[in-house]
Amino acid sequence: MESIKLGLGGFGTVGSGLAKILDMNAERIEKRLGKRIEIKKVLVRDLNKKRAFDPGPGVSFTDDPHALVSDPDIDIVVELMGGLDTAKNLILDAFEQKKHVVTANKHLLAEHGLELFQAAIDNNVGLMFESSCAGGIPIVQTLKESLAGDEINKMLGIMNGTANYILSEMTTKGMDFETALAEAQDLGYAEADPSFDIEGFDTAHKLCVLIRMAYGVDYPLNEIPVQGITSVTPMDIQFAREFGYRIKLLAHVMDVEGKLEAGVHPALVPYTYLLARVGGNYNAVRIEGNAVGPVMLHGQGAGDLPTGSAVLADIMNLTRQMKGSCELPDNTGFDNKPIERATILPPEQSVSKYYFRFTVADKTGVMAAITQSMAQHGVSIAQAVQKGEAGMEGVPLVIISHETAAKNVDAVINEIDAMDFTVEPCVKFRIL
Amino acid sequence: MESIKLGLGGFGTVGSGLAKILDMNAERIEKRLGKRIEIKKVLVRDLNKKRAFDPGPGVSFTDDPHALVSDPDIDIVVELMGGLDTAKNLILDAFEQKKHVVTANKHLLAEHGLELFQAAIDNNVGLMFESSCAGGIPIVQTLKESLAGDEINKMLGIMNGTANYILSEMTTKGMDFETALAEAQDLGYAEADPSFDIEGFDTAHKLCVLIRMAYGVDYPLNEIPVQGITSVTPMDIQFAREFGYRIKLLAHVMDVEGKLEAGVHPALVPYTYLLARVGGNYNAVRIEGNAVGPVMLHGQGAGDLPTGSAVLADIMNLTRQMKGSCELPDNTGFDNKPIERATILPPEQSVSKYYFRFTVADKTGVMAAITQSMAQHGVSIAQAVQKGEAGMEGVPLVIISHETAAKNVDAVINEIDAMDFTVEPCVKFRIL
Repeated sequence: MESIKLGLGGFGTVGSGLAKILDMNAERIEKRLGKRIEIKKVLVRDLNKKRAFDPGPGVSFTDDPHALVSDPDIDIVVELMGGLDTAKNLILDAFEQKKHVVTANKHLLAEHGLELFQAAIDNNVGLMFESSCAGGIPIVQTLKESLAGDEINKMLGIMNGTANYILSEMTTKGMDFETALAEAQDLGYAEADPSFDIEGFDTAHKLCVLIRMAYGVDYPLNEIPVQGITSVTPMDIQFAREFGYRIKLLAHVMDVEGKLEAGVHPALVPYTYLLARVGGNYNAVRIEGNAVGPVMLHGQGAGDLPTGSAVLADIMNLTRQMKGSCELPDNTGFDNKPIERATILPPEQSVSKYYFRFTVADKTGVMAAITQSMAQHGVSIAQAVQKGEAGMEGVPLVIISHETAAKNVDAVINEIDAMDFTVEPCVKFRIL
Repeated sequence: MESIKLGLGGFGTVGSGLAKILDMNAERIEKRLGKRIEIKKVLVRDLNKKRAFDPGPGVSFTDDPHALVSDPDIDIVVELMGGLDTAKNLILDAFEQKKHVVTANKHLLAEHGLELFQAAIDNNVGLMFESSCAGGIPIVQTLKESLAGDEINKMLGIMNGTANYILSEMTTKGMDFETALAEAQDLGYAEADPSFDIEGFDTAHKLCVLIRMAYGVDYPLNEIPVQGITSVTPMDIQFAREFGYRIKLLAHVMDVEGKLEAGVHPALVPYTYLLARVGGNYNAVRIEGNAVGPVMLHGQGAGDLPTGSAVLADIMNLTRQMKGSCELPDNTGFDNKPIERATILPPEQSVSKYYFRFTVADKTGVMAAITQSMAQHGVSIAQAVQKGEAGMEGVPLVIISHETAAKNVDAVINEIDAMDFTVEPCVKFRIL
């Protein structure tokens, strides 16, 4: 039986997950493809390091990137190293060697995706990346193929398992942020340096990749507004619950009269929505197409086997396309046309309902001053709650607004944070 | 710009939905494919019938099936007529004319899918059918491509919007079955003859199609155990709620030590599960892969635009594959190999927890007789509730069992239904 040979760049969590699945499901894969899939060579930094999983006797290790991509036996290069420069060079070198590439590297795609797509086109090879977004959830394939004929009105995603785990623990167990983060680190859900996860950058990388697949345009990563979850307190979660919401770290993008509005924010989600029920380290993406209506995909967003499953789907997809003499696979989902810059709605014009938590001195006139500032800036109040206990230095005053532009919200907060009764800066989240 | 020309068999709900989307999203489709997609000819039964939607001046109508498939301009035949014989003949004739076919016809695929797959292989053409299962939800593509490398441990689906709508209305509004059905018919969610929907056959057709995509084997339609929702009463919904469940019409298939166990049944689903939250006429499918873990897809299972979106996805997929000189598309997802009969777990051996509702005379010794019969047949009781009101002819006695084989359940029910205190036959549902 013919076999497709892989060169793996990196052999960490996802690489060893892929190796496990290739072993565990070999029979199913052969039945599907009429071919075997084998790892032939693995690129690692340190040849002497002990591996948690042994990929078998037929696999050789190298620490030379070019030795991996230039091996004439290798059909597909699988980049699972992460990081930017080394990974990018490996992929570009692979393209020059006319090798197809599968990558899980959302950060690299977000930063340098356009250059990589172009290099793939120039070399007439495939670049596949299902595993880069939301782990085992087939969101890339769904946008590229299944919803290809839809205009995407809106997309919402919970796409970072670490952040969702922390928020879920804070919600169900009343933990504070630091305790929940430490627990996530103990369980291996959060990195030693969790900043990409909790500051929202990892979610922004994925959003950047998915915007290209949904709209065929580029919303540059460094222009996506990003707010992490470090400012979420148990108090906010409790207030949100009282108003009928759960707090989730959401990526969103929507088409506002031909302009794209996008961002990553903690947001209050009505508890009756399925998205509010996405618990623990699960991920979910909700897409609203103008024909298909709302579609939600839910599953595990990380982990060796779920992510390995998505990597394998790409490998099998490329293998199917390598039959016969197909033309270049459509990597972008838009006929491999160059991806132009999105027409972007300036973020300050984006409209949402908001949750404000002011921390103020418990004295007369505060509520009047805040509501007057809001009225002056065109922020209309839907609900307000103040909770104070005797002896507190600052009491929380929570306001839920009607829909308003982000610039009005910023103006209100700048004004009120400067007032003398303000004890701590205002915390604000969007409301879905 | 090159255009792909469609011949439509049928111009009802889905056909006019497809025509609307092709018009509404023409620009997006061209951007994706670098090609136009146009309806050239439509096969209808009655040329004089008034159409609710006008597909435009370039489209001609015919009542001759062969005139549709033999038109040399037509690249893809889209079968949206429903029914068995005429649809089957149209597709087989299209294959002989070397035309690719897209169909939404789950009933035809379930009954004659193996013959159609073989005919497509023999003629080296594509047969695509995303729209046949769960409307706009990309379940076929997900099983065929995205989870291709996974062994599927288990699959659960809510795949009939009419049945789910009726059960949802009974749950949220306390309606009885007949009232909810009449309401669904008024709203156009249920056919004048709703038997396929409410008796579970439509769900069984979809399950039959999806089992092939998940496992690469055929579980013959006429061997799938099917139980509809006509026996579900508001009382059952209320009892289920008290135990912490919602009642849903579920299709299920699982791998039990290499044998497939499958069926369509009303089932009690724990209310904390996402599947229990699938409301109204929505559909959802939950797949459990041995690598990817659980993945759930949720969306609209019917309607002109959602189903049209899935038809269009298939058309666009075929159009991409028609580039270059690709070999035959892999219609089955298993390298176009003949699909063999599944190794089937005899349904009487399938194991589940059960809900029993006995209707019995309110007299001493009944509970003892029932529990003794259950004990003798190896059915272990987890919970029991009896609710009676003075003067009722028969009182409901509800028992929740631990896991037991279906044959034990049948033996118990046969025995107890024959006892003299039984007023109405026992109603039983599975518990998820």
